[in-house]
This record gives sequence, C-alpha cells and structure tokens, in this order.
Amino acid sequence: MAIRVTVWNEYLHEVELQEVADVYPKGIHGCIADFLKEAGMETRTATLREPEHGLSQEVLDQTDVLIWWGHMAHGEVEDEIVERVHKRILDGMGLIVLHSGHASKIFRKVCGTNSGYLKWREDGEKEILWVVDPGHPIVDGLDEKIVIPHEEMYGEHFNIPQPDELVFISWFEGGEVFRSGCCYHRGKGKVFYFRPGHEVFPIYHQPEIQKVIINAVKWAAPGNIPAVTYGNTQPVVEVKGEIKHTIGELHQQKQE
Amino acid sequence: MAIRVTVWNEYLHEVELQEVADVYPKGIHGCIADFLKEAGMETRTATLREPEHGLSQEVLDQTDVLIWWGHMAHGEVEDEIVERVHKRILDGMGLIVLHSGHASKIFRKVCGTNSGYLKWREDGEKEILWVVDPGHPIVDGLDEKIVIPHEEMYGEHFNIPQPDELVFISWFEGGEVFRSGCCYHRGKGKVFYFRPGHEVFPIYHQPEIQKVIINAVKWAAPGNIPAVTYGNTQPVVEVKGEIKHTIGELHQQKQE
Amino acid sequence: MAIRVTVWNEYLHEVELQEVADVYPKGIHGCIADFLKEAGMETRTATLREPEHGLSQEVLDQTDVLIWWGHMAHGEVEDEIVERVHKRILDGMGLIVLHSGHASKIFRKVCGTNSGYLKWREDGEKEILWVVDPGHPIVDGLDEKIVIPHEEMYGEHFNIPQPDELVFISWFEGGEVFRSGCCYHRGKGKVFYFRPGHEVFPIYHQPEIQKVIINAVKWAAPGNIPAVTYGNTQPVVEVKGEIKHTIGELHQQKQE
Amino acid sequence: MAIRVTVWNEYLHEVELQEVADVYPKGIHGCIADFLKEAGMETRTATLREPEHGLSQEVLDQTDVLIWWGHMAHGEVEDEIVERVHKRILDGMGLIVLHSGHASKIFRKVCGTNSGYLKWREDGEKEILWVVDPGHPIVDGLDEKIVIPHEEMYGEHFNIPQPDELVFISWFEGGEVFRSGCCYHRGKGKVFYFRPGHEVFPIYHQPEIQKVIINAVKWAAPGNIPAVTYGNTQPVVEVKGEIKHTIGELHQQKQE
Repeated sequence: MAIRVTVWNEYLHEVELQEVADVYPKGIHGCIADFLKEAGMETRTATLREPEHGLSQEVLDQTDVLIWWGHMAHGEVEDEIVERVHKRILDGMGLIVLHSGHASKIFRKVCGTNSGYLKWREDGEKEILWVVDPGHPIVDGLDEKIVIPHEEMYGEHFNIPQPDELVFISWFEGGEVFRSGCCYHRGKGKVFYFRPGHEVFPIYHQPEIQKVIINAVKWAAPGNIPAVTYGNTQPVVEVKGEIKHTIGELHQQKQE
Repeated sequence: MAIRVTVWNEYLHEVELQEVADVYPKGIHGCIADFLKEAGMETRTATLREPEHGLSQEVLDQTDVLIWWGHMAHGEVEDEIVERVHKRILDGMGLIVLHSGHASKIFRKVCGTNSGYLKWREDGEKEILWVVDPGHPIVDGLDEKIVIPHEEMYGEHFNIPQPDELVFISWFEGGEVFRSGCCYHRGKGKVFYFRPGHEVFPIYHQPEIQKVIINAVKWAAPGNIPAVTYGNTQPVVEVKGEIKHTIGELHQQKQE
Repeated sequence: MAIRVTVWNEYLHEVELQEVADVYPKGIHGCIADFLKEAGMETRTATLREPEHGLSQEVLDQTDVLIWWGHMAHGEVEDEIVERVHKRILDGMGLIVLHSGHASKIFRKVCGTNSGYLKWREDGEKEILWVVDPGHPIVDGLDEKIVIPHEEMYGEHFNIPQPDELVFISWFEGGEVFRSGCCYHRGKGKVFYFRPGHEVFPIYHQPEIQKVIINAVKWAAPGNIPAVTYGNTQPVVEVKGEIKHTIGELHQQKQE
Repeated sequence: MAIRVTVWNEYLHEVELQEVADVYPKGIHGCIADFLKEAGMETRTATLREPEHGLSQEVLDQTDVLIWWGHMAHGEVEDEIVERVHKRILDGMGLIVLHSGHASKIFRKVCGTNSGYLKWREDGEKEILWVVDPGHPIVDGLDEKIVIPHEEMYGEHFNIPQPDELVFISWFEGGEVFRSGCCYHRGKGKVFYFRPGHEVFPIYHQPEIQKVIINAVKWAAPGNIPAVTYGNTQPVVEVKGEIKHTIGELHQQKQE
C-alpha cells in the first residue's frame, strides 16, 4: 500500500513574490508533492490559508507522513492545529521538517527547546552536506556528500536536543557548520529535520535533495505499531504489597 | 560558592491530608530543602499557592537548580510561569523532576512528548532500582541497586524521548519495569527525571534517595557557560557567494 | 531481492545433550533458518566445527545479515574469523546476536566493552519483555509485551555501551531487569542484540520471538550504501593554508 | 584530592625531528603535563620506548585519567598493554585521546569500529571548532568557537560510533567537517576524543585547547563508583521457577 503523504506549505512567498513563483510555479508544496508522487507515494497538499490550515482531523488521520515548510508566518499557525499534529505524531505519524520550518511551533514543541535559535546569513554561499552515518536508510543511494552551489547559511549553535541519529553535517563557505539531518523518536512517531531549502534557490529541484526527502518519508512511515496501554493497571504477576490507603481513597474519605 | 537550589512543591496533599502531613510535617519541599542544605547547598522553597507560584523572574534568576514536585494540580500551574521556567532551563538552569512531576507541564514541554502517559498502580509493592550506568556522577557513592520496600508502581511504556543518559531502571513486584533515572540536555540546561516518591510512603527520608537527589543537583548545576550568539551573522571567513536579492529585500522592494 | 541471511551456531549443546536435541532436532541454527526462510529470506547456516567455522570470505560476501548463537565455546572461535566478520559489519553487513552470544568475541569487539559481564541464573523463572520504543521497526506487529513462561535470567549491570536505540527491557521474577533489545550502528553496519534464548527452553519456537528476529533481519539488512572515501584527500574548495613542511616531508628530508 | 593524570606520548617525532623538538622541547607529553600540573593535577608521563611503554599495572592503578598521543607507531604498542589499559577504563579510569590517537589500538578497541578511517590533509588550513552542546562541562569557560589558524585537516566520514555526547564540530577551509569532541561511556569509565593537535603547529600551547583538555580531565575522572557484581547470582525476591536441569547439570550428568 502506498505511503500517504501530506505536504504542508505556508504558501505566502510564492503568492507575493514573482521571483519565488518563477522557481516554484506550483508552490514549494506542489514541487515536493510531484516528486513524491513520482516515487510511488499517495500525496496531497495543505496550506496555511485553507480552513484549519488544511489539516483537519480527517486529513491527519489519513496521513502517514506530514512534510512541513514554513518561514514568515509561524505565528499564524493556530495552537489547536499544532496540538492536533503533535498528538498524531505521538500516535505514529511521521513528520519531516524542512529548512526554515526549524522555527515552526510544531518543531519547537517536538524538540522541547527553542529550535528557532541558530545563526543565519543570506549570502548565497556554497553548502556541502557530509554523510556521517553511512548505513542510515535516509542516505540510501546517495554519494558521501551533497554540494549545493548557492544557499542560505544556517550555523551552530542550533538549539535542538542531541539527535537520536545524526545523519548529515553541513559545511558553509563563511566558516560555519550545522547539524543538517537530525532524527528523533517521539512516542510512536518519527521526526526528521532536513536543513536545505530556500524560496529563491532551486533546492527542491536538485535530485539528491529529492532523494533524501523520499528516503526520509519511507523511514518515517509508521508500520504496524504495538497497542500500548496507559493508566491504572492490574499487575501481571501477583503482588503482596502493603498499602492501607491510596491517595485517591484518602481524599475521598476526607470528602465524605 | 554554594549551589542555589529552589525546591518547588505543589503542597496540597500535605495540607489536606493528615496522613501525608504525618510523613512530611514541613511538606515534601521542606524535607528536600533540609537534606540539601545539610549537603552544603543554599536552598529556598516555592509552592503553587504563592504569588506567581513562588517563581518570580528574580527567584529563577537566582536559582542554579530547580526541583519540581507536583501531582494533583498540574493544570493550575500558569502557562506563563511554565514558559519562564523553560526559558531559564534553556539558559542553563538545571531541573530535577520527581515522581508524579512526570505529568507536569514543564516536563512535558521539555520532553516534547506527553510524558504524562505511563502505567501506574498503588499497591505498595516492592521496587528495585538498578544502576545501568555505573560511571555516571548521579550514582556516585551508591550501591548497585536501591530497594524501596513499598512504593507506587510506574510501568512502561513511559512516553518520553530516549534519555541522553539512562541511569536507573526499576523493577516492580507486579511484573513491570520503568526507566527511572533519565538525563536530558536542553539548550544550555540539564534535566534529570527521578521516579521514586510518594506522599504517604516515606521515600524522601530514605538515605540513598537523598544521595541521588544531591548528586543530581551537582550534575545539573550550570558552570561557566559559553556565550552563544544567534541570528543574522557575519561570515568568519570571506564568502564569494552569489545572491541577487535576499527574501527580506524582495519583500521590501515590493512594498515600495 | 530476498535478504540473504547466514545463521551461525556453535552447535555443541545439541550434539552432546539429548535434552537439547529434543527441543532443536535440526540445531538452533536449523530452527532459526527455517522460520526465516518461511518469511521469505534466503538462508544458509554455518557452525563452529566447519572449516573456517563456515564463515569463509565468500560466504560473508554473500551475506546481508549474520545471526550469531554461541555459548560454551566462544574461545574456540578463531581471531582471524572474528576480524573478518567485524570488517564485513563495518562494510554494511547486519549482525544479530542472540542470548549467550553476548559474551562472544564478535559482540565484545563491536561493543568496545566486556559485554560478557552480567548477572545470570538458571531457575526457569518468568520473563516479561516490555517494548520501550513502540515506533521502532523491530517491534512491528507485536504486542506491548512478550511473556516467556520459563527462562534463564540475565540481570543488570550488563556491561554494554548505552544502545543507540533501546527497544526492550526485561523483567524477571527474581527481582532483576535487563536491556534485552539493543541497537547499535557500527560503520555502515547495524547490530542488534536480543536477549531471549536457551538450549532447553523452547524459546525460538515462540511466535513473538520469531517475529522479533524477522523484523530485526529486515532492519539490519544493508541498502544501497554511499561510497565513502578515506585517506589523504584533495580539498573541495581552494585552500590558502600555510605549511612549510608536512611531517612526511620532514621525515623524508631527514633520511636523505 | 588532586586528580592523578598520566600523559602518554609515543615520543618519536620530537626525538627524530628538530622542527618538532623546537615546538615541544619537553615532548608533547611534557607540555601537556606542565599545564595540567599548573591546573592543580598530579601528573606523570609515560612513553612508548619505556619498559611496558611506561604503563605498568601499578602506574595504571594509580591513574585516574590517562591521556593518549600517538601517530607513527600505533602498531608497536603491545596488545597486552592495550588490554591492560582497556580493563582499567572499564573499571573507571578516564581516557582522553588526542588527534592522531584516533587510529591507536586502544581507541579502536573502545570504539568497536576502525576509527583509523577518516580523511586528512596537511595543508595548514584554518580550523574552526564550534560548540554544539553549550551546557557540557567540557566547554566550561570557553567561547562559542575556537579558531586554530593553521592545522592538519581531518574530514568525515570519521568511522566512530555516534558519540554519547557530541561537544564540538570542526569546520575546515577546504570544505570538510569533523566531529571533533566526542564523549563515550564504557563500563565504569569515560572516554573523550579531542581532534586538535599536530607535531609542528603549536596547538597544545593555545590556551583554549589547554582549557578543553583540563575540563575533559575533570569530566573523565572517576568518582566513588558503585560496586557492581557479576556472574551467577541469587534472586532478590523468591522465585517459583521451573527447571528440571540446568545446562551445567546436564553436561555434568553426561560426564558421570
């Protein structure tokens, strides 16, 4: 069965600026959805200005992996939608956060830090992504490095938790480095942050970048997840414990 | 210079229930502050019903390590205070979360998961905490296990991210296991979750438990942290990049 | 294309003891190879007493995942073969180490510790394996726990490095816990240690245990790994460095 | 009580080459021992050509942290001494491996990989080490980056396991990146790999580099480690297991 991917895009730059629309005529989401469809996935798109940002409960329930691109309007994403997306991740949905999505509400929530903090510079300098975990499924079929001729720089310190699996580290011409491919496990879901991307540089047209995103979707897609139970629970084996009153009972006695 | 510790306690059970007050006459916070003071730390306490829950900006600014105990009133903690505590952690303050504090707003925020989810049972059964990282500073001076005769059970799955360092795993009589001592790095701060604790069982009077908390305070206390810079930044070495217009410029041109 | 699995077994207990042969008439390796074949894998077996322990370079070169079971004769495995297996792992071959294989030369080499150290007891007590990473591919299609009615106990401290991904923690009737499902990345290869197993208890006939091993084979199988280069290398971008003499040149000058 | 540090150096370059002796008149070990002594540590040195390479059991037993520098003669280090050092690390001794020590027998053994594999180039290019874990004790009192004007390059892929804590990432002028500060826990001991260092460039005279090594010694020094027991063990709580014969008994019966 095909993996069901929803590509979310803020979709403001492309509408407002001809220079961006020239690079991504169907929007960044359209470009990404297209190459994922070609790779055999079942795709749909969603954008900020749609009702519920296009992320109704129904849409999320039918999504295996959500891709997130945002930049200038992180603050406009409703907290209620962020909670809904977060809950679906903990329940098994994969999340792939691209480039300036690092500062999105959902990625900050997943990180537990203010992942909006990093260094940046728009000088169109060279970026080289080096593979540091060559056996990882996300680098399947790649070369040992990816060269991007002109990019926006992101530099450390990047205020994220140490990744569960660090896959790429970037080099920038101006002297900075960056943890550019970062895997996290959160509840039953998997999250991948991937740094490259820009509105004017044609990053998502580059075949190696597409390959990484396709691999990441496969890695993040949920399988047949064990049914986990929570809450007050019976012992598996007999207990000879000793407790006169539970806290619940004590409070109840008091009220009576 | 002494480490400055603020011990925060919800402080409701002790006020409402004589059975709890009998175990902790000065409150759980009073008990913990006492043994930390004896260990050479500079301590103060704070509780839910104080203005700003006792956690004004000034108090937090003078706190190296914050200890957190809550159970029945997590929802009453103001979001604004949670944000304030979170910001201080990212800035270097240590946080030690005890027992039912796993479901607190601040720990859920730090985890990026709903760490409130776990199995539990109040049968007063035996708990054995096993050291799994014997070289870790938090187990300094301990035995290879800690036995607690009667405890509330917490069982896996515990909905937390894989700890950066896992220090203890608990065994429970009824058949469950639990990751009971979990270290996280978040920004410049360090966080330790420690499972044992209860309102009626005299856990925090047990010397080994006190030893763990003392060690954890020392581990979590900030040192002389590097000054990290964020934001738009000049290159360290010369860049020969190529960019006609930054996104900022494009938007500005459009507005003119 | 089918994953090519080689199941290695010491194969001494089964030959010497009728009680073991009764449980595993075709040897433990035969049992494991059978259920893997049924799951669609291409399997072969190899044992200690074969020439080169059945692990010639040719066999290893045609192996995607190697399964390792040994107990009483770890010391008889030739160092040269251990080196050969290790080199193949770093080059991408998966390794799955079962039960008493924890003390094998190859697993100790992979760990960088003396993973032979743990507690053990043969009392046939109950074991419960709890899933602690429910989104992991190795627990695909399982329940949240696996109960084994009668097992040999292994207890912490288990002298391994903290796993890159910890998947299972075991509970034992006698009061111990154990990290029972441990993932490691080593070079381009992936390694999984799985605790259950015994010569007399029919562990490898239990469907959930078979399911874990099948999942682990899929997880550990190499994909299309990037070609990584090592050694003295040309710069990717121009360097304006300053060095009068390399150490190599200095030594050469001296010899001339 | 002062931390007892043994600084081990191959000590061949300094003897053979005047250019190296000019930079390190007392050898690299002498330089390092000097600044550690000034920082309050109790230091001694040991070198390859001494009996047992200066690392007798007695010396190791009195060593809290061992510093390792080697380059051209890794193969001359006796396997027996490597085993002895490894055993002491698992037992709690800290190990700090510098620069070309990455290819030493002891670090390869600790890693479980062939950590000798990396890219390198002696072009005297600029290196910038960026702090990626600003709350880590090893970066205490530093700036957010360390600039080394002229260095030998080391580039990824560096064939090490993912560090338990990654502290520094290096940038090199020629386009490479490198994981330059890597922490590992092994048994009861702690290991830190630190990349900078060269025989001709005066790296170990640079104050920030000295600061890192001093911090690392403090981090790696053992505390009061729990006494861990291994082997056949009695249950902590009563077991109602069911086993007719242990494997040991079966083998014994057979022999009788």
